[in-house]
Amino acid sequence: MADDKTTDLVLAHYDSWMNGMASYDETRLRGILAPDVKFEGPLSGKRTGADAFLPGLAGFVKILKALRILQKIHAGNEASVLYDCDITMPRGTFRFAEFFRVEKDKIKEIKLVFDATEFRKMIAP
Amino acid sequence: MADDKTTDLVLAHYDSWMNGMASYDETRLRGILAPDVKFEGPLSGKRTGADAFLPGLAGFVKILKALRILQKIHAGNEASVLYDCDITMPRGTFRFAEFFRVEKDKIKEIKLVFDATEFRKMIAP
Repeated sequence: MADDKTTDLVLAHYDSWMNGMASYDETRLRGILAPDVKFEGPLSGKRTGADAFLPGLAGFVKILKALRILQKIHAGNEASVLYDCDITMPRGTFRFAEFFRVEKDKIKEIKLVFDATEFRKMIAP
Repeated sequence: MADDKTTDLVLAHYDSWMNGMASYDETRLRGILAPDVKFEGPLSGKRTGADAFLPGLAGFVKILKALRILQKIHAGNEASVLYDCDITMPRGTFRFAEFFRVEKDKIKEIKLVFDATEFRKMIAP
């Protein structure tokens, strides 16, 4: 797959949710993610499948005010994105790093890293 | 700069410390990092300069048992690496994401992301 195809797909992914719930586009997301997408993150652990992944993403979008991409790197079928998010709860700006693998024109794997310290306090104070 | 030069530099960086204090090579690191390297991470905040960065790295190497690279992506003068570390204190396996920018054959910028929850407990229980 051409490099730019991977970037297009990853940027379309962010474009489907980064502007808040009003623009959250589940139909478009299901066209971008493989049905058996594998997700891994500090709070949710490992999840397999768009059905398991999307509710968590929608929950995040509800507390997201703004997302700014700081760095994005892609090569072949892999991409990584570093971004800052302004969040309402916990209130503040938090940094996220996300690594993708693309297969057959779909996002097949997402590994998310962020400092969950303040988020854990919201879940179990 | 050719892509493989960026990868070589970033992998040389890890190679200078990932195998523990016995192999920690400060002279080699100073040849890899720009003297005014900019570092940013969840615990240390922003630091500028190899002199400000290296003591924190050495402190980390002292608690590092093993490092396994899961994904590395490079394009032009940028690279990102996703890795898991086995740590002695806090004990466990933790995931790290690191984004690099290279300038004039040196690492000029490092942005590190990880879940610092357990590490914060060690600093301020």
